[in-house]
Amino acid sequence: MNIVIIGGVAAGAKAAAKIKRLLPDSNVSIYTDDTHVSYSSCGLPYYIEGNFEDYKALLVRSVEEFKASGIDVFLETKIDKILPKQRQVLACGKDKAWLIDYDRLIIATGARPFIPNIKGVNDFDNIYTLRKIEDGINIRNKMLNSKKVVIIGSGFIGLELLEAFVKNGLEVVVLEKGNHIISSFDADMSLLIRERLESIPDRNFLIQTGEIVSEVTGTNGLADTVKTLSGKEFKTDFVVICAGIIPNSELAKNAGLEIGESGAIKVNKLMQTSEPNIYACGDCCEEPHIISGHSVWVPLGSTANKEGRCAALNAAGVYTIFEGVLGSAVSRCLNTTMSMTGLTEKEAIEFGFTPVSATVSKYDKVAYMPDVGEITLKVVADKATGLLLGGQAIGSLGADKRINTLASALLGHLTVHQFKNNDLTYSPPYSPTIDPLLDAMNILCGKITRRC
Amino acid sequence: MNIVIIGGVAAGAKAAAKIKRLLPDSNVSIYTDDTHVSYSSCGLPYYIEGNFEDYKALLVRSVEEFKASGIDVFLETKIDKILPKQRQVLACGKDKAWLIDYDRLIIATGARPFIPNIKGVNDFDNIYTLRKIEDGINIRNKMLNSKKVVIIGSGFIGLELLEAFVKNGLEVVVLEKGNHIISSFDADMSLLIRERLESIPDRNFLIQTGEIVSEVTGTNGLADTVKTLSGKEFKTDFVVICAGIIPNSELAKNAGLEIGESGAIKVNKLMQTSEPNIYACGDCCEEPHIISGHSVWVPLGSTANKEGRCAALNAAGVYTIFEGVLGSAVSRCLNTTMSMTGLTEKEAIEFGFTPVSATVSKYDKVAYMPDVGEITLKVVADKATGLLLGGQAIGSLGADKRINTLASALLGHLTVHQFKNNDLTYSPPYSPTIDPLLDAMNILCGKITRRC
Repeated sequence: MNIVIIGGVAAGAKAAAKIKRLLPDSNVSIYTDDTHVSYSSCGLPYYIEGNFEDYKALLVRSVEEFKASGIDVFLETKIDKILPKQRQVLACGKDKAWLIDYDRLIIATGARPFIPNIKGVNDFDNIYTLRKIEDGINIRNKMLNSKKVVIIGSGFIGLELLEAFVKNGLEVVVLEKGNHIISSFDADMSLLIRERLESIPDRNFLIQTGEIVSEVTGTNGLADTVKTLSGKEFKTDFVVICAGIIPNSELAKNAGLEIGESGAIKVNKLMQTSEPNIYACGDCCEEPHIISGHSVWVPLGSTANKEGRCAALNAAGVYTIFEGVLGSAVSRCLNTTMSMTGLTEKEAIEFGFTPVSATVSKYDKVAYMPDVGEITLKVVADKATGLLLGGQAIGSLGADKRINTLASALLGHLTVHQFKNNDLTYSPPYSPTIDPLLDAMNILCGKITRRC
Repeated sequence: MNIVIIGGVAAGAKAAAKIKRLLPDSNVSIYTDDTHVSYSSCGLPYYIEGNFEDYKALLVRSVEEFKASGIDVFLETKIDKILPKQRQVLACGKDKAWLIDYDRLIIATGARPFIPNIKGVNDFDNIYTLRKIEDGINIRNKMLNSKKVVIIGSGFIGLELLEAFVKNGLEVVVLEKGNHIISSFDADMSLLIRERLESIPDRNFLIQTGEIVSEVTGTNGLADTVKTLSGKEFKTDFVVICAGIIPNSELAKNAGLEIGESGAIKVNKLMQTSEPNIYACGDCCEEPHIISGHSVWVPLGSTANKEGRCAALNAAGVYTIFEGVLGSAVSRCLNTTMSMTGLTEKEAIEFGFTPVSATVSKYDKVAYMPDVGEITLKVVADKATGLLLGGQAIGSLGADKRINTLASALLGHLTVHQFKNNDLTYSPPYSPTIDPLLDAMNILCGKITRRC
């Protein structure tokens, strides 16, 4: 059996390793146009920040290690075409092209940075995006010789880079076209994140929302000024674009595979595309949302791993269902933890729920303990049924704990009433006697019914 | 309506506050033989350690604050008898006794330290237990003038005091009669906790298991030697007995209320005793176990709060169910977090399950991050059905997060198969790409069925 895997960062690497263990006699090959395989893309901001010296710490498994376990990896080899009828793919190396037979094909082509339509955006060498190992190395090297940077976009990666640059002494400007930073959160929570960040004393960064970048100008191939539609100008030593990502689904689309509304590849719960012998996993494909039931595109590293595993199992003939995602995420910016799971209030409305929410701001442990931090937690539920829909938490490290605790409840489709007596651990160094989650549930109970 | 509450630490104080809000026109009174009301008993070890200077930080709500919200508090006033037929209680103050009418009675008498049968245990002024504010003050004062201490017992409180004393420079001996410290954990996890503690360089403490204390001797009213059955002797400046607690259920028992097998007061899911107008809550009563379904006695501060609330609601005529407990707990000893929820493997067998378990030791975040810690996580499930039964985690701060995440799953009666794709948050400072919980689930899947 020939198993061909296109892409090898998270989902592809996981799928390859898993399927080789399941079918030791099969031929498993990874083709990637990347210069590296199997690495932690999510770790790049921490490498840039300088948490560790050698980028090689980000490499999970080398080409040699794959080779040793019987998996061939072809780096810098682009797959140009999928030919489902003849069960072949067309590979293009540096100076040749060739056809490769497959019995099962796993597409794990990932995603790439979205580049907004900005005048001059392609004209300079010091405008970066962050996705691959080289991007991280280039940005770190540039940062070490710079004093000013403009970040375009304020999602998780934008804010992680804000931290990295600020900690390295740079003057940072973040330009966000929307009205709020980190717009995956509800607006009220985004505002709190911004407040927390801007309350840092002697901060050396500026966040500007509602600023659409219109043009980048410079000299000698180096950008030095970022201009916005409103007429503002920001001098800079380099620019990083963190304006989101788009799925690498063109290869699948050109092969006639079904593409979802999001633009990512459509798969069923077995991670199978519209062609039964072709699977897709990771950032290039959609997945069902556990709460809304709709197909969504939530490209995250942890999901990629699970999907890669599921695709491998099914491709190997071991029936396995991937139940879907909650969109659980966490990120850190300058000691502020930002975490979420399930639907925001905004998304809940879009998906046809009538949400109610409760927001509590509370210490993360008992107030008299040293190093007490604060978290603000927002929990969203369906007014009609009390079904828990999602939650968002920002603040100290403890924010993340509450969101994972809620994620399990969402997975189990618990209601507010079921959750409100949840037996969560308590001890002064770990939480207040009544956990913020339980406070939120008690408030929600009051909004849903008078019974509690 | 006259509402009488006996006891006012956690459950009683919560019940009083809640019922007064629900029934503002009622007369609500708290009677307690304690010198303080409404305080954080769980915070006493941290006060002793010196995390904060003033013990008053432990007081949640003062007598005056209760008074201001219309609740009368009678300190140092023992309730000597409950007379259910005449709906009265007999109160004893310093120099008088009197009868008090009630329409609803809430018993929140808590628990008291268990004193093992040790020769000389009552003969010395420097043998302490830790339960009340005075105990904390007395132990702290004694500690500040001492160099050596013997702790009898190695449960959560014993180990929390170990930390407090070690951090204050004392030479500490912990004597445990069982074969393992902290026996609420499975033996394999207890061993790991002990290993972690004993691996601390230059540690100034000694843990001795299998040592039954037979006698305490001393001179001038002060104990100076602790002797064990095996013939060992330990010199000491003072002794703290942390050998567990027993429920204060005698008052209820003498009034003819039903008592459970554990010795604590039996209640239904409305926190009602066998007398319909009498409720019980907190450390003096049993509660249903969410997983086993059996009545258990798990006296914990967080549970006391929820039960106090539930008792108040039902006493006020607002029908509310308390679903029970998972026995979730967390504690810290010298940078080791120890946390658990649900059934241990040992308990699962006692309750008639055929458990399987998976234990993983893993970094709590991605290995390349600074301050990476390690946690060992054991998850227990039912072999026949895959139902999740419980978990135990020890190690860095992140241990607690995994246990709360599991608690929600236990509350929802999820199986290993349902949990294995749980969408938990991931980012390098917060967890490895594949969370230890998911690793454990994948291992369990293999033990339960070949399907995954």
